[in-house]
Amino acid sequence: MLARAALMAASTAAILAVAPAFAPASAYDPLVEKQSFTIPAFTTQSGETVKEMTLGWEAYGALNEAKDNVILITHYFSGNSHAAGRYSADDAAPGYWDSIIGSGKPIDTDRFYVIAVDTPVNLGAHSPTVITTGPATENPDTGKPWGMDFPILTIRDFVETQKALLDQLGIETLHAVMGASMGSLQAYEWGASYPDRVERVIPVIGSGWADADLIAWLNIWGAPIRLDPNWNGGDYYDGTPPTRGLAEALKIVTLHAQHPEWSNGVFGRAWADEAKDPADSFQNLFRIEAVLDGAGLARAETSDANHFLYLAKANQLFYAGHGDSLYQGLFDIDAPVLLIHTNEDLIFPGDAVRETAALIKSDGTPVQIVELQGTRGHLDGVLSIAQAGDAIRAFLEEGGE
Amino acid sequence: MLARAALMAASTAAILAVAPAFAPASAYDPLVEKQSFTIPAFTTQSGETVKEMTLGWEAYGALNEAKDNVILITHYFSGNSHAAGRYSADDAAPGYWDSIIGSGKPIDTDRFYVIAVDTPVNLGAHSPTVITTGPATENPDTGKPWGMDFPILTIRDFVETQKALLDQLGIETLHAVMGASMGSLQAYEWGASYPDRVERVIPVIGSGWADADLIAWLNIWGAPIRLDPNWNGGDYYDGTPPTRGLAEALKIVTLHAQHPEWSNGVFGRAWADEAKDPADSFQNLFRIEAVLDGAGLARAETSDANHFLYLAKANQLFYAGHGDSLYQGLFDIDAPVLLIHTNEDLIFPGDAVRETAALIKSDGTPVQIVELQGTRGHLDGVLSIAQAGDAIRAFLEEGGE
Repeated sequence: MLARAALMAASTAAILAVAPAFAPASAYDPLVEKQSFTIPAFTTQSGETVKEMTLGWEAYGALNEAKDNVILITHYFSGNSHAAGRYSADDAAPGYWDSIIGSGKPIDTDRFYVIAVDTPVNLGAHSPTVITTGPATENPDTGKPWGMDFPILTIRDFVETQKALLDQLGIETLHAVMGASMGSLQAYEWGASYPDRVERVIPVIGSGWADADLIAWLNIWGAPIRLDPNWNGGDYYDGTPPTRGLAEALKIVTLHAQHPEWSNGVFGRAWADEAKDPADSFQNLFRIEAVLDGAGLARAETSDANHFLYLAKANQLFYAGHGDSLYQGLFDIDAPVLLIHTNEDLIFPGDAVRETAALIKSDGTPVQIVELQGTRGHLDGVLSIAQAGDAIRAFLEEGGE
Repeated sequence: MLARAALMAASTAAILAVAPAFAPASAYDPLVEKQSFTIPAFTTQSGETVKEMTLGWEAYGALNEAKDNVILITHYFSGNSHAAGRYSADDAAPGYWDSIIGSGKPIDTDRFYVIAVDTPVNLGAHSPTVITTGPATENPDTGKPWGMDFPILTIRDFVETQKALLDQLGIETLHAVMGASMGSLQAYEWGASYPDRVERVIPVIGSGWADADLIAWLNIWGAPIRLDPNWNGGDYYDGTPPTRGLAEALKIVTLHAQHPEWSNGVFGRAWADEAKDPADSFQNLFRIEAVLDGAGLARAETSDANHFLYLAKANQLFYAGHGDSLYQGLFDIDAPVLLIHTNEDLIFPGDAVRETAALIKSDGTPVQIVELQGTRGHLDGVLSIAQAGDAIRAFLEEGGE
């Protein structure tokens, strides 16, 4: 039984590290290519300028002549633009939402042109499949990494980078914008900021603003990085990066994005090593501890600690529309909304999602809610999204304005 | 509105730092004195010996001649034996459960002799009102603090220290044992280990074992300490203690023991300083961040980082009875149980508490459950315990075996 548990733990560790490692029956078929684009001078909402904002993006399907069949997928905190498909035939796993994006799937690439974009300050700054600009990027003015001199960005800035890509491609309107978690914040923001360009909004596992609880947890997520002496106030690109602190930060995110039903069911009180009783030494761990340690360390290898802190800040600063009042952005959303979430979510609890829905609906904007079922908490928004497949398909057919 | 919020935040910070700062209408009347006792050679469950295990204790009420009117109160993770009353007439606040312990109160000190004991490895090792033995204590064999050479303790060890005090006092049976959170684990352990000496068990906001989720969170609670370079593998008593790491650890505990309904209601998205927009700098914080920082730092002053890690380990290792099977200890509880909890608890969720209750009941042991209502999550087990006052009073009258 322990051996089986070990196997489960190992495969789970891979899932924990990023997102789903399961290969659904039919993946997006043509191979996917990470492309990049550059915004020559990107002005942030705070008024600062980033010369050469270069970001990665992926697309699935074909742009029609009217350029009106576009669905934008915005990604979560630890994600990137690899939403579907494989880079090569022998890739271990496809993009994170491959279960709903592809030929004949709810987001049907025979019909839609699906675009996903790496955010600036993307967590996976050192991943070969992420193209981003942030503190780890060389500042053309100094020839050195920006570090903490990089301007603070907001979710609205992320939206503006995506809009810049669409402008470069000559795309005026979005058939839909859809994203999970931090991706849902971008979806709300698109709906609030560009009501004339967005026909449908599909926020998944997210609510309309960062409340005090989320702000506090984001602070706690980042604390291990700030405590790691190698972080050195963000100035570590010439030396040893704060890998331990970053790994601990990623551990917290990993656990927070799950649900006790999962951790208790899979790990219980099993020991990491059958021969090493956790009662005997502080070095002897329970299996759940070792799995989280492994997941955090694995993920830290391709991640950047400063990027983590910039992402946490962008999430803390979020409220839809970033305007003069907390709710105005939600009132500004005119496009119909399909809101997908789970009540087992510890990061964006059901009450916050329902309050968001009520505010959007309050001025007559149509809102549908789909509740996902599962044992994975927040992560079910990625792992179990196929449950909402029929609702998504119908919404894309009929839900638009 | 911001000024009012600031006042609320300031008073809340005090609450956060330890426990209730509210003074109920009538506190335990006679002044309370912290006493101490010593176990000359305390043998741990792991077989190690601590020479001179000295611990603090408090008592409220009078021991009757038969010595059968004793109620033992076991304390929570960040607590100590100051459960009721004041040390001096001008104390700002009484002990944490003063609302239910005192003359005429549900735990009526006119009738009962109420004893509370500081645990070994108590968090408040550097508090003038805590007497404990642990890593920060001088090891008589070396003349230096034990540090991480102190033996790992379990909740059962805590129970054994309490039993040693009762033995010294000639007390054979407990009319009841009652404790919140980590105190509830000690209550379960008393019921499981000494069924003949315990007549009633009142676990508050706790369940019968540490599950994978709690084990993982306890790991995360301690991570900031291990990351602080001043921790130095636990060897810091000659130098600078890891105060920053300890403060961050205490921040996590503080937030985890609350509920979003509270943090969102009290703090919302208010800034720590009206003139300093968190969008402008990583140094500019939201109020909830600053309040948690302040609470963590304040509490760290009198706490010990190694003691925190030993407490976390003891909690991870807990399952009632510490025997050969996970549930046996719960089956071994024969005394009637009054289980008090809240469904808004993020540390010991309702499902875990109900499962514990079902296991205890499964062999015929009477179990009553009282659900507390409130917005404070886990902390309502301390702050809102008076809601269960009538149930406690009745249980102490009639519930015994």
